[in-house]
Amino acid sequence: MIKVGIVGGTGYTGVELLRLLASHPQVRLQTITSRSEAGMPVAELFPNLRGRVDLRFSEPDRAALADCDVVFTATPNGVAMGMARELLASGTRMIDLAADFRLRDPAEWERWYGMPHACPELLEEAVYGLPEVNREAVRAARLVANPGCYPTAVQLGFLPLIEAGLADTGRLVADCKSGVSGAGRKAAVPTLMAESGESFKAYAVPGHRHLPEIRQGLALAAGSGVGLTFVPHLVPMIRGIHATLYATIADRGADLQALFERRYAGEPFVDVMPPGSHPETRAVRGANHCRLALHRPQDGDVVVVLAVIDNLVKGAAGQAVQNMNLMFGLPEDSGLGQVALLP
Amino acid sequence: MIKVGIVGGTGYTGVELLRLLASHPQVRLQTITSRSEAGMPVAELFPNLRGRVDLRFSEPDRAALADCDVVFTATPNGVAMGMARELLASGTRMIDLAADFRLRDPAEWERWYGMPHACPELLEEAVYGLPEVNREAVRAARLVANPGCYPTAVQLGFLPLIEAGLADTGRLVADCKSGVSGAGRKAAVPTLMAESGESFKAYAVPGHRHLPEIRQGLALAAGSGVGLTFVPHLVPMIRGIHATLYATIADRGADLQALFERRYAGEPFVDVMPPGSHPETRAVRGANHCRLALHRPQDGDVVVVLAVIDNLVKGAAGQAVQNMNLMFGLPEDSGLGQVALLP
Amino acid sequence: MIKVGIVGGTGYTGVELLRLLASHPQVRLQTITSRSEAGMPVAELFPNLRGRVDLRFSEPDRAALADCDVVFTATPNGVAMGMARELLASGTRMIDLAADFRLRDPAEWERWYGMPHACPELLEEAVYGLPEVNREAVRAARLVANPGCYPTAVQLGFLPLIEAGLADTGRLVADCKSGVSGAGRKAAVPTLMAESGESFKAYAVPGHRHLPEIRQGLALAAGSGVGLTFVPHLVPMIRGIHATLYATIADRGADLQALFERRYAGEPFVDVMPPGSHPETRAVRGANHCRLALHRPQDGDVVVVLAVIDNLVKGAAGQAVQNMNLMFGLPEDSGLGQVALLP
Amino acid sequence: MIKVGIVGGTGYTGVELLRLLASHPQVRLQTITSRSEAGMPVAELFPNLRGRVDLRFSEPDRAALADCDVVFTATPNGVAMGMARELLASGTRMIDLAADFRLRDPAEWERWYGMPHACPELLEEAVYGLPEVNREAVRAARLVANPGCYPTAVQLGFLPLIEAGLADTGRLVADCKSGVSGAGRKAAVPTLMAESGESFKAYAVPGHRHLPEIRQGLALAAGSGVGLTFVPHLVPMIRGIHATLYATIADRGADLQALFERRYAGEPFVDVMPPGSHPETRAVRGANHCRLALHRPQDGDVVVVLAVIDNLVKGAAGQAVQNMNLMFGLPEDSGLGQVALLP
Repeated sequence: MIKVGIVGGTGYTGVELLRLLASHPQVRLQTITSRSEAGMPVAELFPNLRGRVDLRFSEPDRAALADCDVVFTATPNGVAMGMARELLASGTRMIDLAADFRLRDPAEWERWYGMPHACPELLEEAVYGLPEVNREAVRAARLVANPGCYPTAVQLGFLPLIEAGLADTGRLVADCKSGVSGAGRKAAVPTLMAESGESFKAYAVPGHRHLPEIRQGLALAAGSGVGLTFVPHLVPMIRGIHATLYATIADRGADLQALFERRYAGEPFVDVMPPGSHPETRAVRGANHCRLALHRPQDGDVVVVLAVIDNLVKGAAGQAVQNMNLMFGLPEDSGLGQVALLP
Repeated sequence: MIKVGIVGGTGYTGVELLRLLASHPQVRLQTITSRSEAGMPVAELFPNLRGRVDLRFSEPDRAALADCDVVFTATPNGVAMGMARELLASGTRMIDLAADFRLRDPAEWERWYGMPHACPELLEEAVYGLPEVNREAVRAARLVANPGCYPTAVQLGFLPLIEAGLADTGRLVADCKSGVSGAGRKAAVPTLMAESGESFKAYAVPGHRHLPEIRQGLALAAGSGVGLTFVPHLVPMIRGIHATLYATIADRGADLQALFERRYAGEPFVDVMPPGSHPETRAVRGANHCRLALHRPQDGDVVVVLAVIDNLVKGAAGQAVQNMNLMFGLPEDSGLGQVALLP
Repeated sequence: MIKVGIVGGTGYTGVELLRLLASHPQVRLQTITSRSEAGMPVAELFPNLRGRVDLRFSEPDRAALADCDVVFTATPNGVAMGMARELLASGTRMIDLAADFRLRDPAEWERWYGMPHACPELLEEAVYGLPEVNREAVRAARLVANPGCYPTAVQLGFLPLIEAGLADTGRLVADCKSGVSGAGRKAAVPTLMAESGESFKAYAVPGHRHLPEIRQGLALAAGSGVGLTFVPHLVPMIRGIHATLYATIADRGADLQALFERRYAGEPFVDVMPPGSHPETRAVRGANHCRLALHRPQDGDVVVVLAVIDNLVKGAAGQAVQNMNLMFGLPEDSGLGQVALLP
Repeated sequence: MIKVGIVGGTGYTGVELLRLLASHPQVRLQTITSRSEAGMPVAELFPNLRGRVDLRFSEPDRAALADCDVVFTATPNGVAMGMARELLASGTRMIDLAADFRLRDPAEWERWYGMPHACPELLEEAVYGLPEVNREAVRAARLVANPGCYPTAVQLGFLPLIEAGLADTGRLVADCKSGVSGAGRKAAVPTLMAESGESFKAYAVPGHRHLPEIRQGLALAAGSGVGLTFVPHLVPMIRGIHATLYATIADRGADLQALFERRYAGEPFVDVMPPGSHPETRAVRGANHCRLALHRPQDGDVVVVLAVIDNLVKGAAGQAVQNMNLMFGLPEDSGLGQVALLP
């Protein structure tokens, strides 16, 4: 059994980790920390876990964490980087669900997150945990930077086109839509139901923090910088991301369906749907899958890729468990067999 | 033109007052105060008012308020009672949308609201602004206590039965459901969309602050105390209250439909629907109506009254405007001609 | 492995059965029928099942069904009773998720369902599949009548009070609220999102088909007929039932919390929450649990029981799988380990 | 008073016309037809109209319609074109809310709508009723083709750029999102709340009927054909369209904010919001406004225009009333003073 700790378990990625890990056959949950809720039974805050998780939230404790085989950090940006050196030194591996280790360039990190990086020397070691790109590196990693939700959907949708050299990488458009759980479990007026229900809007059009992360991943695949317009929107629903991706291709004759199917053959969590499909976010609700479909409207030179994920699963906690499975030599889909909840 | 001031205009009853008053033919909005947003244009916070309301939020200013003919207080409980004496002394009339003047007994107020009453001598003068009960008193009032949202729906539904002496007043049940805007526009975790969307729950079953207000109103009609079980629930929608009311009647032969129609004949905002109806909250969304329907299942001795209102209109701002119309001798429905938004 | 067939698999109980059975370790799905969709891959209609269910819908075929160990009928009312005799004669056991075998009195069935019963002689044999009441009988049953969704929640909430002789059974009130999936997956205007979204209403107040089913179950527990007012409501959400139950008790000193905890001790799927709790439907979304809480407001003689279930799981497909587990000697919670999806 | 008839009043554009016209000071509703509901009081089908509309639905009657000054056709595509010749010949003017007269080329109409056009000679006379483009022609029109919902939002968002010659018209992208009321009030599985709630998807990516309508309008402004990728999506909400528009501009120095403000100066229903804004659909819910905002992310050469309308108001019934006002010489905003319902 793998001894697991969670730091910062009171948010939505925290409770989702708990849902998945509580059913994982190879995991023993050892500790879950929260400064604000220390002492409270986890199942009191999250009654869906009654009868399944008996732990209480505890104050962060170095020894207890160091005793774990792996620690998931589901903390606000900037917290995990303060703990990483010590935790890794104790031999514990670490999967960070925040953004602390996603950008390789500390200057870029500082520009977008507004604080200097606490351990830039670890940025090089950290493995960006998108298994469909970095599977082998993840297996060996001590420190995994779990990708952001939008970056997961956008990269999985664009990568086959870019890796094959088919897309004009100077003019990519990612029009993305997310449910409100993406904003986290924190008291705030804009995500009240009376504010975000029954309404739709774009936000952060001038620049969202996931932009540099996506650009970094696409540039690595392209071998050079990319031009990307990224517009996120808030959908009046709880879970789900839908990415609508636009790319211009030079070769109208390319068999894109075959390209995508080949790229993702054998991938346990990427599903290339049949031609003509329109994936719905509910088809992945609660499941770790990314479902993709391809269109080339009016047989033109614009490819439209539709990609859906559950932002809390493949976009966060599920992908983190997938990475854990890789790191510890378990079957990649261990504990991730949930069928999406439809309707 | 009536010169109107609003104190505390940044909440949902505030913006709803603005929506209604902006179209009222007899009103000039003079001032709207908010300590937290002073200086900000109202239409920046509430873009639905762009082009319709040019005011900015201002710091509360005694002289500016005293210059108004009437001031609406849409403040947290306990604020209005601190301003009432001075405002009334200056000749300004006052309609309080909070709970400060709803309970006649200051000890009861202190018990439920946890603070001593600041001006108990005004409790006797204050008129409980349910026009269907106190129309004449409202016309003459200096100070109106605008009813709570649940109390409006529950009283309108029970009153005909109680006034006619038909109901067993010792065993009333009010099972009520409200949209999330009833919780107000304040940062809080439980009313986040990710918390209250796609879910349903009861709350405050041990005791809700609207309980003593409802009991007071029903007892006045009954001529003695009543036994009432009141259970409020939170519905994953924004606007609307649905009250499902249960009463046992002694006389199964009574023509309840005729009773209700007679009681509310001529009432501009109470609609007794045809026998067999099931009113929907959307049939009053944005409108000042209460729609009612009566059932006596299986011809038994239990009467089920169904009552719907928009909690922000007939349950708050609309009823306040209705009261203002009465106080200033205007047609009672002036500025309240909105047709409910369906779908 | 148990060989399983499903008749009528295109509705919501059908897809939910598939979700649960696809992960059940002891089940082999053999056949799933649908006249209207015969030939279509199941996963094309329900893309959440892609990669998990490879079957196609097929025309109902007697031999194929007779070859199953158990057949679930998830058909419109009146269909299963036409197949039961033959299917049972072939040695196949049967779990009906419709209402065909729920009422013991064929005259009562005809009154509420508007057609004569096709095999009244089987009504006596059929076991009402509420395991918390009929566990032993279910184990031995050839034919199980799976309870309705409202009846499951209402009975689980009232039974401890009635069995203990504490409640006045002449004056019970069940105010129930259901998500829209309860109306089924059929083209209809009233359950369009534009009709039932952002609105709340009661329906079928004069008499709902679940009323005789609930009365039958409570009367059996009480030892005599009961007086019940049952009012169902439609909630703008997809899954979940919340029952708010009112009963008058003679003995105010009774320890109701202890009574309920004792009654349901050892029950794998009934969770009596701590005193003061307000269960939310999302705490059981996708899970087979019923969560209950008890209140006695203002220490009066009215008990308020709050009960939540997922109408498609404990209220339909999950309970059916629970019954199957009992019938085939499997652990009762086999394949039912899902943690509710929150948020 | 203008005598008004409505043909096909049982859909969402029908009830919305009724909501607006019931409050219009210059209108007398004379007749409203529906074959399916003939004889039923309008307010029985749409209880929000109780006390405001006393008409019953009637069988279509030529004489009654010919007696109207103007007839709104809110019928399925293909019906209005069968009535137009005769109605116009009788001197009645006509505003079609369906697609029958939107495309100037009858061959294009037949290609997208699958039937030959019944009166191609009227296509030339019909005025495309986008007042911001064709105001003077609308004033004189006998026959107005009321624009589609998506085309209204997309054209208002792109037109200033295209008219000014700033956009690369060969590479336009319109990523559009609509609430479910856009699918109309007809029994269908895909728009059930249990299907479309809590989920998000694209649809009709290979080609939507609004594509040729948008292309026609943009081409007229550009003076030549345009290259447009148009992807519509379904949002789990009832009302509202959000268009996210992408265009590449040659001149990064252009003052786009000033351009848009100049283009729409004096327009009563187009609101160019301040720089940096993110319009929400709820800011126009129930109102006839289109609110627009402009962004040029990272100071690049891609302009992002955000445009919101209420699909049933500016996207249908409200724009139809606006056109009627123009046709009859009334103030353009007569009867269209509704403030959007927020929250």
